[in-house]
Amino acid sequence: MMNSWNLWLNTPVVFGVLALLIAAFFYFRVLGLEKGNETMERIAGYIREGAMAFLFKQYQVLAFFGVVVAILIGISLGKIPALSFVLGAFLSLLAGFIGMKAATYANVKTTQAARGGSKAMALLTALDGGAVMGLAVAGLGGIGLGGLYLIFKDDAQLSPILHAFAVGASSIALFARIGGGIYTKAADVGSDIAGKVIENIPEDDPRNPGVIADNVGDNVGDVAGMGADIYESMVAAIVAAMAIALTSAELPMLMQAADLEMNKTVAIGLPLVLSAVGLAVSIICIFIARMLKHMDPAKVLRGALILPPIALAIASYIIMSCLGITQAVTAVITVGALGGTIIGLVTDYYTSSKPVSRIAEAARTGAGTNVIQGLAVGMESVAIPMVVVAIVAFLANKYLGLYGIALSAVGMLGGTAVVMTVDAYGPISDNAGGISEMSALGPEVRAITDELDMVGNTTAAIGKGYAIGSAILTVLALFSAYNIEINHVRSMAGLGAIELVLTDPKILIGILLGSILPFLIGSTTMLAVGKAAGAIVVEIGRQFREIPGLMELKAEPEPKKIVEIATAAAMKEMILPGVIAILGPVLVGFFMGPASLAGLLAGSLAVGATMSLFMANAGGAWDNAKKYIEKGKLAGEKKGSDTHKAAVVGDMVGDPFKDTSGPGIAILIKVMSVVSLLIAPLIALL
Amino acid sequence: MMNSWNLWLNTPVVFGVLALLIAAFFYFRVLGLEKGNETMERIAGYIREGAMAFLFKQYQVLAFFGVVVAILIGISLGKIPALSFVLGAFLSLLAGFIGMKAATYANVKTTQAARGGSKAMALLTALDGGAVMGLAVAGLGGIGLGGLYLIFKDDAQLSPILHAFAVGASSIALFARIGGGIYTKAADVGSDIAGKVIENIPEDDPRNPGVIADNVGDNVGDVAGMGADIYESMVAAIVAAMAIALTSAELPMLMQAADLEMNKTVAIGLPLVLSAVGLAVSIICIFIARMLKHMDPAKVLRGALILPPIALAIASYIIMSCLGITQAVTAVITVGALGGTIIGLVTDYYTSSKPVSRIAEAARTGAGTNVIQGLAVGMESVAIPMVVVAIVAFLANKYLGLYGIALSAVGMLGGTAVVMTVDAYGPISDNAGGISEMSALGPEVRAITDELDMVGNTTAAIGKGYAIGSAILTVLALFSAYNIEINHVRSMAGLGAIELVLTDPKILIGILLGSILPFLIGSTTMLAVGKAAGAIVVEIGRQFREIPGLMELKAEPEPKKIVEIATAAAMKEMILPGVIAILGPVLVGFFMGPASLAGLLAGSLAVGATMSLFMANAGGAWDNAKKYIEKGKLAGEKKGSDTHKAAVVGDMVGDPFKDTSGPGIAILIKVMSVVSLLIAPLIALL
Repeated sequence: MMNSWNLWLNTPVVFGVLALLIAAFFYFRVLGLEKGNETMERIAGYIREGAMAFLFKQYQVLAFFGVVVAILIGISLGKIPALSFVLGAFLSLLAGFIGMKAATYANVKTTQAARGGSKAMALLTALDGGAVMGLAVAGLGGIGLGGLYLIFKDDAQLSPILHAFAVGASSIALFARIGGGIYTKAADVGSDIAGKVIENIPEDDPRNPGVIADNVGDNVGDVAGMGADIYESMVAAIVAAMAIALTSAELPMLMQAADLEMNKTVAIGLPLVLSAVGLAVSIICIFIARMLKHMDPAKVLRGALILPPIALAIASYIIMSCLGITQAVTAVITVGALGGTIIGLVTDYYTSSKPVSRIAEAARTGAGTNVIQGLAVGMESVAIPMVVVAIVAFLANKYLGLYGIALSAVGMLGGTAVVMTVDAYGPISDNAGGISEMSALGPEVRAITDELDMVGNTTAAIGKGYAIGSAILTVLALFSAYNIEINHVRSMAGLGAIELVLTDPKILIGILLGSILPFLIGSTTMLAVGKAAGAIVVEIGRQFREIPGLMELKAEPEPKKIVEIATAAAMKEMILPGVIAILGPVLVGFFMGPASLAGLLAGSLAVGATMSLFMANAGGAWDNAKKYIEKGKLAGEKKGSDTHKAAVVGDMVGDPFKDTSGPGIAILIKVMSVVSLLIAPLIALL
Repeated sequence: MMNSWNLWLNTPVVFGVLALLIAAFFYFRVLGLEKGNETMERIAGYIREGAMAFLFKQYQVLAFFGVVVAILIGISLGKIPALSFVLGAFLSLLAGFIGMKAATYANVKTTQAARGGSKAMALLTALDGGAVMGLAVAGLGGIGLGGLYLIFKDDAQLSPILHAFAVGASSIALFARIGGGIYTKAADVGSDIAGKVIENIPEDDPRNPGVIADNVGDNVGDVAGMGADIYESMVAAIVAAMAIALTSAELPMLMQAADLEMNKTVAIGLPLVLSAVGLAVSIICIFIARMLKHMDPAKVLRGALILPPIALAIASYIIMSCLGITQAVTAVITVGALGGTIIGLVTDYYTSSKPVSRIAEAARTGAGTNVIQGLAVGMESVAIPMVVVAIVAFLANKYLGLYGIALSAVGMLGGTAVVMTVDAYGPISDNAGGISEMSALGPEVRAITDELDMVGNTTAAIGKGYAIGSAILTVLALFSAYNIEINHVRSMAGLGAIELVLTDPKILIGILLGSILPFLIGSTTMLAVGKAAGAIVVEIGRQFREIPGLMELKAEPEPKKIVEIATAAAMKEMILPGVIAILGPVLVGFFMGPASLAGLLAGSLAVGATMSLFMANAGGAWDNAKKYIEKGKLAGEKKGSDTHKAAVVGDMVGDPFKDTSGPGIAILIKVMSVVSLLIAPLIALL
């Protein structure tokens, strides 16, 4: 058994390398596709340049941050954890770089395919472009964590090494998501307002220099930001499960035949193996989706999202049978995967069905009622996902205890590669539409890209649901891991366990303080978007005043300036939220002790989980309510009517809600948990 | 000592009766003041009638609810607790009835005094009118709880009797606040939209039949609703401290000389006595404020709010010295009182200073940025109050343990009578302005009422801060009381204590579920306001279409119809939130056990505390940003400009935020805690 298990432990690296090879294949396939015309390539070049400029600027900030944190980790926990932190961060950046490169080539190739008249080819191109990101994210995550485990399996430092890797992944996710979110929404809102303030300039007019920045933003936010987010969710879920297995005194028996030592070994490696199996299953699903390119894109993508969890459950059943591991594992994986699917579908409902038409309806009586209705929908949308997470946690705990909760998160994230593929598909097809519009390719081309884009919006909602749902479940697991780690360290030091009693004033105070942090992140990110958007409006105004002939289409706008402003603003404004997220738990942990830190995590979990769902879903619903009116679905209304203008207000409020603050808060609670887990040995004895 | 202590135990009833006598004196003094002209009296009559119609309608709904709950309590806990529940509810309604009567007479008398040209007399009238409510609330609370304690001091049922009283108070608060909040904002938003939809009808035009309903709403929401809210905060804080004293195994020693039994007796009675001293101090402050009527009203009212906590601290120091009780009590009371003052001032800052001018500034670029800025301000405003509550809890716990936390809440609520007086003063002077406007009394009169009203807005913010701050602290205390009660009951039954360990999946699941409830209340109340406002718009439109001559001022509108619609809507829509708040903890408690219920409370506390601060403050800030522009303080802008219109959108969103959902959520968490405390003995053994 031990031998066969050791073989299985190679799967994360093996499947990870395989995923990267396939990603490379897709990348070069896309790159080799027919070029677009000169205008198309020029615009795509702007977007690519802008996106890369953002990435490199971000690398500078992150390098500084990374060095500081690495040194601190090196001093307090040792050299190898410090290097592991750097590796966790580096692989995230690498995945983002690869994915963004692919996406910013695939966009114009998709437009070109649509120009050739083939919807299937356009779909395939966007899908392949997205798959590069999806496979890079899941592959590099598996290689990193799987490789570390193979090397340091028997090292006493294994725990901090794994935790530091997760902190590296989380930090990048936080900055990428918040920085990217600020960038993309500042560009979006800025161009939008400029279009209103400067007369006669429609929002996506090629004369508007903000349009390029807006397209860059899609890549920066929805490709790089989302990729780092999902990469870190996957990493954190695996690490949480491994951490619990490493230190829990009450590990469930996974194999009847095994001794305690063997049981523990299997429990530690299992999350890695399951995640690798999830990657394998996802690769198959991606190929199936590619084969179905001639079908309705909506069905193909939706199927691609729903299939992997089911396939993973089946695969798990077979593998657990072969290995003699309890099928409780399969049950837990399945529950997590199903939970994720349900949350995704609920998110889809709240951001596309009746709630959306009600928000559109409320716009008839003005912006105020439109905003009120959207807020109410967002608040209501919190309930079912939280109940689903609670049920998943309940069942997972029933089968396999706290370890089961962590494993259910691994199950929910089993389809990471596919989810990310479909997520990155969104901005690629969105960009493809933008390029066809700016290059004036005519309505036939636009019709194809529009259809692909629309499908992307729906699947994006499902993907976002997965992301937040798995974040909550992961935080729950990390939280347990933190507490187990604290008491493990204490028992090693011959001290009694800390009783984390809910009525302990230390914990209550921690809960009060923890509940503040998501609101602070919400506030700073909302304001950051507002400020940056304001600066963009000013610059667009300047260009129209100072560039002669711009209004008459006789001169070119200077999109680079806008990209620079948005990038600089994003870099500056992402620092405060980042510092809050990382310093918050550190300060509370060191100055108020491990119990207050547990309270802090619990408080921020309760508030952060609900706030991120609320903001993400309200934002998505407003966006689609506006589109609902634009498509003429609201009787008697159309683009430009007073009702539409009212809906635009909701959409503008929703922009930072759904793409900056909401996802930012979801990452906040993950970062806080991982940082707490990392510093647990340092504060356990305080 | 025991004898003198028994004397002190009479203070709640004695001072309570004294307060009622003074209230009666103020009431009849106001009633005997000079009448207004016929128009004024007719309008005031409409308002009074509308307010009373609302109250009586509400009594019907509450009677039904009350009978059902009383029977359930009677069956499960016994007859006397059931009667105590009824008493707690009845006294709340009585205070509301008395206060509303006084307020709806004082409004027109204030107008008349302003018509006489005397600002001092107008201030005095509004103040006296408000003091009736303030004294009734604090007096009846003291009489009720103090009386119950005198009668059932040695009864084995004392705990459930006290808890049931608090549940009675809470239930009424919930329905009054949410019902009143829906009513007042539906009328406000409805008239506002109607004014825009039906051309040429300004918001507060006498032809608009919604104006009367709007004025009724001020009384219904800010007098009756706020009164029930503060009454229940005071009751809940006292009951929490008494409950902890009754059952805690780790009660701090309050007197060096006393034995354990005596110590416990003093600890049980102390919150009552301190609250009575607070009432006495408040009465003195009210009389001082009355004497200063010729001074600047802003200073008088602000001073009236800040003085009582300081005076209470001094009084406590003297009394504790005399009784030989540790001055740790004074320290805790002072910390609580100071904390309340700071939270009040912070609320004032966020709803009047720089944050408000920034929101107004953001309106220049449209409604979207105005709403974004307001949301960001609201989110930021959460931080300091929560930190203050955490510090108060930390210090109070340091001095006197969990009992100290409850006592600090009693200290924060020491000035209840004054806070409520100043709160009720607000709608009275607001109504006075409305009556003078509708009766066309000219700018001199309006100038006086406007000044009084403006002061009321600031003090309302401070009062609201107190209310939410004390709610959070009270919930913290109730939460501790609940857990202590659970384990007390278990130890009585010979069972081991339940370990409420934070990592227990039962508790984690409870936290997840608890975090949903505030969002559900937020969503249902926001939607309720929207729906009811819609119905009012339709009715106003109908009246303008169907009543010939209304537009030309030749015919009277039918304000009663609007009042009826708003009342019916409020009654209907307050039921769902009420049921959620009460059934939530009951279902979780009985089906998932006491640990999950503790988690539920913790989750709803974290989310509810922050959400209510966020919503109340954002709403207040938007409101004042709109007024800021109207007063011409934003350079180049005035009422009716595009920027002002954008600010109106924020104000409209803020209406349900600040007066319905925000306060509703604050009460939700109180109701949940009291209900849990009441059912604790029934679920402790599950």
